[in-house]
Amino acid sequence: MKLFYSPASPFARKVLVVAHELGLSERITVVPAAANPMEKEKAIAQLNPAGKIPTLQLDNGEALFDSRVICEYLDALAGGDRMFPAGEARWKALVLQSLADEALDSCILARYEQLYRPESMRIPDWVDAQMHKVFTTLDVLERDWIHYLAAHVNIGPIAVGALLGYLDFRFAHVGWRNGRPRLAAWADGFAGRPSMSTTAPTT
Amino acid sequence: MKLFYSPASPFARKVLVVAHELGLSERITVVPAAANPMEKEKAIAQLNPAGKIPTLQLDNGEALFDSRVICEYLDALAGGDRMFPAGEARWKALVLQSLADEALDSCILARYEQLYRPESMRIPDWVDAQMHKVFTTLDVLERDWIHYLAAHVNIGPIAVGALLGYLDFRFAHVGWRNGRPRLAAWADGFAGRPSMSTTAPTT
Repeated sequence: MKLFYSPASPFARKVLVVAHELGLSERITVVPAAANPMEKEKAIAQLNPAGKIPTLQLDNGEALFDSRVICEYLDALAGGDRMFPAGEARWKALVLQSLADEALDSCILARYEQLYRPESMRIPDWVDAQMHKVFTTLDVLERDWIHYLAAHVNIGPIAVGALLGYLDFRFAHVGWRNGRPRLAAWADGFAGRPSMSTTAPTT
Repeated sequence: MKLFYSPASPFARKVLVVAHELGLSERITVVPAAANPMEKEKAIAQLNPAGKIPTLQLDNGEALFDSRVICEYLDALAGGDRMFPAGEARWKALVLQSLADEALDSCILARYEQLYRPESMRIPDWVDAQMHKVFTTLDVLERDWIHYLAAHVNIGPIAVGALLGYLDFRFAHVGWRNGRPRLAAWADGFAGRPSMSTTAPTT
């Protein structure tokens, strides 16, 4: 399998972390790719018209996307019910993934404002609204999810790990650890897992 | 169950279409809600820090989001393996949902550019890049997915139905049917399903 990948993409990181946790990473060939929202890379666009990474190409040529679908596929390939729990446990894991993915989407919109607009065309209220969603998500994680995070390794905590790693990588200046000591401690511990340390974001 | 809903939201529509197809719509109380990205509605924000619709509140008080998670939950409630196929058939349905959801995300970003920025602060290249993703997705649907669409009613075609309905609703001026006769014919037929006609978007 070929994974179109960027070491700066938190969504691509989710896929590699899942692959590592499932013992599947040696079956995946990582293909470095750009994820510029203004200009699609041809090799990806032929498989996925949104041109986004991660995109996974199977050995039969078919393409899978987005990160949620790829992660669930890898879980099924490893027998299932590991990173995506079956039964009633499934919904908590998936809601936690949604929480983290939504916050990541907000981070990325805030970042695009800076990357793709000259300063005079940026709208601070828009960036603030995005970051407000991120901060309230972090507060909810600190208040309601800390025991779940400590007790599980599945797609939920992995998505949260990708979110917090991305904040450290691109938004270090916001100081997300302030006032969230339990989440910060969990993040530091989780970052030590081999699946996480070998996929730490780089430019 | 309570569904925070707006009749203009294509993602909320997916949920109601799935509920109708599964015969579950009478178990869902629809709560009209606003989905303004700049200002979160309190009732939703308490359940979902991203403040987005659709958000589903279960009878035990717990919240489910986003649309993908809610749709899959409803499918499980109805016995499973109907809107979300099991086994190998699952991946095609999920990839098709991703295709449609990604194009919807692009539509919404293009629309926000107009809604939330004064004209002098809009970047036409940004809007064009978003709409280009939408158009290439439509081309892929016309070329590669038409037989699948005609043969299946599951979360994939439902997401495509929500996408095409949203284009008619908010982007009628782009003339998406031009050059895509098979997709247009499928859309017109699919729109006649009771699940679709009772959920047609309104402001």
